[in-house]
Amino acid sequence: MSENQDKMLKIGIPKGSLQDATVDLFARAGYGVRVPSRSYIPEIDDDQISGVLFRAQEMSRYVEDGVVDMGITGHDWVIENNSDVVEVCELKYSKATSKPARWVLAVAEESGIDKVEDLEGKIIATELPETTKRFFAEKGVNAKVEFSWGATEVKARLVDGIVDVTETGSSLRANKLKVLAELLSSTTRLIANKDAWNNPWKRQKIEDLALLLQGAIAAKSKVGLKMNVEKTNLDAVLQLLPSEQSPTVNQLADNAWVAIEVIVDIKIEREIVPQLMRAGAKAIFSYPLNKVIP
Amino acid sequence: MSENQDKMLKIGIPKGSLQDATVDLFARAGYGVRVPSRSYIPEIDDDQISGVLFRAQEMSRYVEDGVVDMGITGHDWVIENNSDVVEVCELKYSKATSKPARWVLAVAEESGIDKVEDLEGKIIATELPETTKRFFAEKGVNAKVEFSWGATEVKARLVDGIVDVTETGSSLRANKLKVLAELLSSTTRLIANKDAWNNPWKRQKIEDLALLLQGAIAAKSKVGLKMNVEKTNLDAVLQLLPSEQSPTVNQLADNAWVAIEVIVDIKIEREIVPQLMRAGAKAIFSYPLNKVIP
Amino acid sequence: MSENQDKMLKIGIPKGSLQDATVDLFARAGYGVRVPSRSYIPEIDDDQISGVLFRAQEMSRYVEDGVVDMGITGHDWVIENNSDVVEVCELKYSKATSKPARWVLAVAEESGIDKVEDLEGKIIATELPETTKRFFAEKGVNAKVEFSWGATEVKARLVDGIVDVTETGSSLRANKLKVLAELLSSTTRLIANKDAWNNPWKRQKIEDLALLLQGAIAAKSKVGLKMNVEKTNLDAVLQLLPSEQSPTVNQLADNAWVAIEVIVDIKIEREIVPQLMRAGAKAIFSYPLNKVIP
Amino acid sequence: MSENQDKMLKIGIPKGSLQDATVDLFARAGYGVRVPSRSYIPEIDDDQISGVLFRAQEMSRYVEDGVVDMGITGHDWVIENNSDVVEVCELKYSKATSKPARWVLAVAEESGIDKVEDLEGKIIATELPETTKRFFAEKGVNAKVEFSWGATEVKARLVDGIVDVTETGSSLRANKLKVLAELLSSTTRLIANKDAWNNPWKRQKIEDLALLLQGAIAAKSKVGLKMNVEKTNLDAVLQLLPSEQSPTVNQLADNAWVAIEVIVDIKIEREIVPQLMRAGAKAIFSYPLNKVIP
Amino acid sequence: MSENQDKMLKIGIPKGSLQDATVDLFARAGYGVRVPSRSYIPEIDDDQISGVLFRAQEMSRYVEDGVVDMGITGHDWVIENNSDVVEVCELKYSKATSKPARWVLAVAEESGIDKVEDLEGKIIATELPETTKRFFAEKGVNAKVEFSWGATEVKARLVDGIVDVTETGSSLRANKLKVLAELLSSTTRLIANKDAWNNPWKRQKIEDLALLLQGAIAAKSKVGLKMNVEKTNLDAVLQLLPSEQSPTVNQLADNAWVAIEVIVDIKIEREIVPQLMRAGAKAIFSYPLNKVIP
Amino acid sequence: MSENQDKMLKIGIPKGSLQDATVDLFARAGYGVRVPSRSYIPEIDDDQISGVLFRAQEMSRYVEDGVVDMGITGHDWVIENNSDVVEVCELKYSKATSKPARWVLAVAEESGIDKVEDLEGKIIATELPETTKRFFAEKGVNAKVEFSWGATEVKARLVDGIVDVTETGSSLRANKLKVLAELLSSTTRLIANKDAWNNPWKRQKIEDLALLLQGAIAAKSKVGLKMNVEKTNLDAVLQLLPSEQSPTVNQLADNAWVAIEVIVDIKIEREIVPQLMRAGAKAIFSYPLNKVIP
Repeated sequence: MSENQDKMLKIGIPKGSLQDATVDLFARAGYGVRVPSRSYIPEIDDDQISGVLFRAQEMSRYVEDGVVDMGITGHDWVIENNSDVVEVCELKYSKATSKPARWVLAVAEESGIDKVEDLEGKIIATELPETTKRFFAEKGVNAKVEFSWGATEVKARLVDGIVDVTETGSSLRANKLKVLAELLSSTTRLIANKDAWNNPWKRQKIEDLALLLQGAIAAKSKVGLKMNVEKTNLDAVLQLLPSEQSPTVNQLADNAWVAIEVIVDIKIEREIVPQLMRAGAKAIFSYPLNKVIP
Repeated sequence: MSENQDKMLKIGIPKGSLQDATVDLFARAGYGVRVPSRSYIPEIDDDQISGVLFRAQEMSRYVEDGVVDMGITGHDWVIENNSDVVEVCELKYSKATSKPARWVLAVAEESGIDKVEDLEGKIIATELPETTKRFFAEKGVNAKVEFSWGATEVKARLVDGIVDVTETGSSLRANKLKVLAELLSSTTRLIANKDAWNNPWKRQKIEDLALLLQGAIAAKSKVGLKMNVEKTNLDAVLQLLPSEQSPTVNQLADNAWVAIEVIVDIKIEREIVPQLMRAGAKAIFSYPLNKVIP
Repeated sequence: MSENQDKMLKIGIPKGSLQDATVDLFARAGYGVRVPSRSYIPEIDDDQISGVLFRAQEMSRYVEDGVVDMGITGHDWVIENNSDVVEVCELKYSKATSKPARWVLAVAEESGIDKVEDLEGKIIATELPETTKRFFAEKGVNAKVEFSWGATEVKARLVDGIVDVTETGSSLRANKLKVLAELLSSTTRLIANKDAWNNPWKRQKIEDLALLLQGAIAAKSKVGLKMNVEKTNLDAVLQLLPSEQSPTVNQLADNAWVAIEVIVDIKIEREIVPQLMRAGAKAIFSYPLNKVIP
Repeated sequence: MSENQDKMLKIGIPKGSLQDATVDLFARAGYGVRVPSRSYIPEIDDDQISGVLFRAQEMSRYVEDGVVDMGITGHDWVIENNSDVVEVCELKYSKATSKPARWVLAVAEESGIDKVEDLEGKIIATELPETTKRFFAEKGVNAKVEFSWGATEVKARLVDGIVDVTETGSSLRANKLKVLAELLSSTTRLIANKDAWNNPWKRQKIEDLALLLQGAIAAKSKVGLKMNVEKTNLDAVLQLLPSEQSPTVNQLADNAWVAIEVIVDIKIEREIVPQLMRAGAKAIFSYPLNKVIP
Repeated sequence: MSENQDKMLKIGIPKGSLQDATVDLFARAGYGVRVPSRSYIPEIDDDQISGVLFRAQEMSRYVEDGVVDMGITGHDWVIENNSDVVEVCELKYSKATSKPARWVLAVAEESGIDKVEDLEGKIIATELPETTKRFFAEKGVNAKVEFSWGATEVKARLVDGIVDVTETGSSLRANKLKVLAELLSSTTRLIANKDAWNNPWKRQKIEDLALLLQGAIAAKSKVGLKMNVEKTNLDAVLQLLPSEQSPTVNQLADNAWVAIEVIVDIKIEREIVPQLMRAGAKAIFSYPLNKVIP
Repeated sequence: MSENQDKMLKIGIPKGSLQDATVDLFARAGYGVRVPSRSYIPEIDDDQISGVLFRAQEMSRYVEDGVVDMGITGHDWVIENNSDVVEVCELKYSKATSKPARWVLAVAEESGIDKVEDLEGKIIATELPETTKRFFAEKGVNAKVEFSWGATEVKARLVDGIVDVTETGSSLRANKLKVLAELLSSTTRLIANKDAWNNPWKRQKIEDLALLLQGAIAAKSKVGLKMNVEKTNLDAVLQLLPSEQSPTVNQLADNAWVAIEVIVDIKIEREIVPQLMRAGAKAIFSYPLNKVIP
């Protein structure tokens, strides 16, 4: 039984906006994850892994406490919770996670407040109160920080300022807010409990999982590209292919021709396919990938 | 302009599960409230009232700070926020608000924990951390209280105990939890800012609004009941009607008959209508009500 | 305890297409019925009534067996199940129940089949197999009757004929089917278990409930209509009012005027309101009703 | 048959955003209108009325052509189509129809275009091309008018200007557009075909329908208000009631008391109910109305 | 024409919970199946196949009668209908079909009923009445079997016992039921009409279709895995690959390296990819498959 | 800046029924297109491409005016708008675009109208008024053409005839309409502005995009098919493969065997896979494709 305990990795899956993208990512990594409706205990098709759903905001606390060995959450929430955990790697796997989220201090454009010091004695609303308090303490500014349950941008004119998250700044502009300072920049992370990280079996399991998840993320933006080329055109064709990835070249039955296969980024493929055609490549086709390990 | 300020009541409408029921209640009280999609600023058809949506959890802070003069929220969140506000009256206006919500300390049935003292040194997850900390402090028990973002009942087995809300106890039973103590019992309240309450114009406006809201709540469970009765049957009929409410009796053109009208509770109506028919009442009908002021 | 048993009426609420209309009907009759999501046990705000949801198709069996004392279902399913129950009254309370449903034997227009006898040795698909078998047995025709799980009209050309339900015949026309015979005409009924009907307390409770439900159904198509009339116009106005319902006439403060109040059908109201106005009635208004007991 | 034709009113119901509100309005006026799913032929429970659904934009053409005798649409589309029809009355029956819609000529704030004349030789996108062409012709300005299928505000920067509809101007502000001119102000209208209007039976039917529809609209913003008043307080109470509407006063059994009933606007009710209570009125209650004919 | 008849395979597609998964399975097998909304006649892009939708419960009857030549349904419904058909193969193609469904006889935990014999004279509700009657007949127990239209688990306490379907037993536990016996274990099957099976053309067509459907099912749990390996590492790498499937090994241009390609199960891939990397494999990638024929 | 202008292609994406299919097509072609909710400006992950959403009906006007350089729309709307644009190629990429849409003149079956000339002086409703007017002008027939906002088939009996779009004719049959003439046959097209087409950089960009879009369309109906074959069976296997596409044949490590790879149509694959198996092919599998350039 204790043996069994040792060979069980407990992982935290982020509930909410990242949940579906995370289940999809695990599927492409090779793990079937099913969340029964209204349940918080996902079913995972690996006897050595058990899972729990937590909100991203609370994930790092449960990783730190050892309730789970490993979790996926944003760097911002690790900082807010001041959690003592290992950040194993970044995971840029969804629209929502591909750009860093920036937490900024913002005030109404017409407020007459121009710098952090002008907020002395004022009220600030934020979903990130601890980080905000630390920020003002470092600046030597006394401000009253109120916790906000979402829709924080609306409160910018009800109180004196807000600390809110933004990706492109468009919501700030729409609400006619100006940014005084950036407190934090954040991406999605795979984090681990320190004891789990020191346990060789668990660390191996976490590292293997990280490898597979990163391989699945890499595969999404690439394709396998194949074509047939007459040898007289081979140099011209090879010059078009990205140099960092050596293509596989195979002799065809007809001695004058070779088959070429290479993994390329989708954005490269769309550039070079018309050029390859003009350079004489024939029977060009591409196919989707599941996983790419560099 | 300052005149105008004095004659403007700012109110907080609860966003989320109570929002639709609150808009409906205001409509029956006589106030058209429209929440533009994605907006937090409801449109209210009274030039002396302006509104903002806040979550019930944060409402009392904004009432205390004077961001709004008045708000609707649960007693539990007033306590959790330790807010210094006036609780004007109860408002039992929706399914969700008709029974008190009870916040209880619960642990897994099989945990071996039987009383509050057994939680010494343990971890408690809750959406009500301040109230929970005060509770343990009063009991002289050291427990680590972790804030939980919902789905708290699932965490009862991940940490050592939870403080969660329940109405009927069915969710506790379904999760096989046992209750060690009740921390708080709560209903929906109309709360006011202390300065607003001391401003005569605002206080009058708040009290009138409270009267209309309570009148609309009362009307929902009552009907107007009318019938014609031959005078020989009058005594028998009157004995069936609830005594606390004196019915209006009118002479009809035919001198042998009178018309009776009375406001009764829907649950009384369903009892007495068959009895009234058997007692000789004719042309019995009932109609819905908008507002009932006692 | 046995006392309590005696004073408890068990009722069957139809699950499915009639469910929402039935809950609404009970509400207007004075009974709060709430069906928790995914539950089959509705909560009813009368300690003497407990409920269960059954599909209309199976209701009469459970009424006959005494699993419930009373239920609401179609006459067709009583016949199909050959259930020995009391049909207490009709309840025409929803769009779906206001016209009788007709079960007809139909075949493809181009089938060459013109009368029941032509179906000798053929296959018939139907959701009402027992009734259909009895029908063919009475006609002395041998036909193989197959039970169909819905979408029966599609099967009219896959097998040789169908027995299916229709209200207006439009689905039959759309599928180019012709009707050979009508087997059954059906409306919604309140049915009771025979033992319950012989128990005086239960019978009283059922009859009272039937009265309230019928009163709520009647109220939906009627309004209360009021107006003021100068006495010189009184005869002209009274002649416009439906004769079967004697209006209540009240003297007003101004001796030359009377107030008239009468319950009329919505379809009558729309006819007479313009005429009443032209006949000199003033301050005409109407109001909705909750319950009308004739 | 021709008789039957003469006694049949064909009406056009607006399809789309006004459809549900229109069906609800007819229901309160006393007419059951049911639109079978995917059908354009509503079922109406009056043998003398048949209906068709048309989009508001095309309604007036079909009324002018006599395809229907009567229709409901916006004044703007009557003008755009240049239709020769009778505008019988306004119908302000829904949120969407309670404020006039304004069609304005707008350009990008930063465009450098400040007056209509600056649009000489430019391109204008609009859903109202004919009205827009007439407008520019009257101003003596040559502009190319392009028909736009919706989302016109987006095109303000793709072409040079737009003519678009607005109620509050908020969409214009959000898109940073400035208004150069207002072309048209519009509300919902009941319109009639000229021949139908000259046919006495049809005109009577249209006028009766208009009366009932307007009565149903009026009832939505009013309630019936009742209370008991001791005669010593009667004057004080009567002074609070709106003067234009004389209340009905009835003697109660107890000679010292009278019952008062009056129809008031919902916005008046909310003002006076607290005052009536303070003036000594007892057993105050209000009830909803179905129809109010002035 | 008769020629055409001979070369047409009629197939039954299961309507309801399996429908979308079945359409998806056919697509991966190479057949475009489109079900027009509200239609029961799917369009299939093969002139030699026509289809009809039937509910799984009734499928085997229509296969037996020859209305269709072939269908997909559960083994349980074949048994319940006592249908004389050929069970061609299993098709485990969806979440719902990957585990056998078990039909069990269950009673309330607190019922005092402990074995089948205790049900003598009792009432049993079930969706599988014929199978249940046969079961009790074999046991020599007299029980009244009532057909249940779904939600059978609720009826366990209304009558005396139920026969219901379960996969994991969780619904039984949630309803506090205990299992007395298992009547049947069932998976999804491709079934054929006996005459169609004896017709060589139809049998060939059915067998080919079964092959393609099974190939598509197999492909869903597998990937194609490729990598480059230095010859010095080749043995170590080959030992990691599953032995039952011999990988394709190709010489690369650089003589020291080979390319390896192999089809592996997704669950194997996730195990061996980290190991392959550690064993020196380079440029590892995998790609999804459409069909795998063993 | 002007440089930047020269190297920017503006494209029009069709809003509405084709939108999702178009976004999906671009994704398979290699372009990430994201339409923010409620926005008309899609985000495209190529710095040289900017996009706008237009309805298919208005697209060609904006292409002709140069508001965008290129767009996707139906040939019918190009004709209706009489737009002077370049039709670059067909794009048959969705269910809705795989069959030509036919615009036909239709009348009620029972109308007594049998040929175009019978419509002299009659009213025709259509979404394609300009094309319809040109058609009647060419025929020398005077007909009044009314613009119809959709649901045109319903109007066939309200006016005298319609010009409406049809794919299979089923809607015409359901409405019992007969076709008098076909005005236009249409498929989806990639169209370009004439100036853009004469700009070498833009023309190259448009042609490359057309190549990638067509490659993605072609890939959807094909798979890559691989198998191992013993040399003794090679001829038999090669005869089964489609002749127009020469397969790639590779020697395997075991000298007696070769590996074959070929791109085939999905409909061919389903035919030949069972035959290949019978011809001795082993380890047959197929995989999906992203792009196929002939």
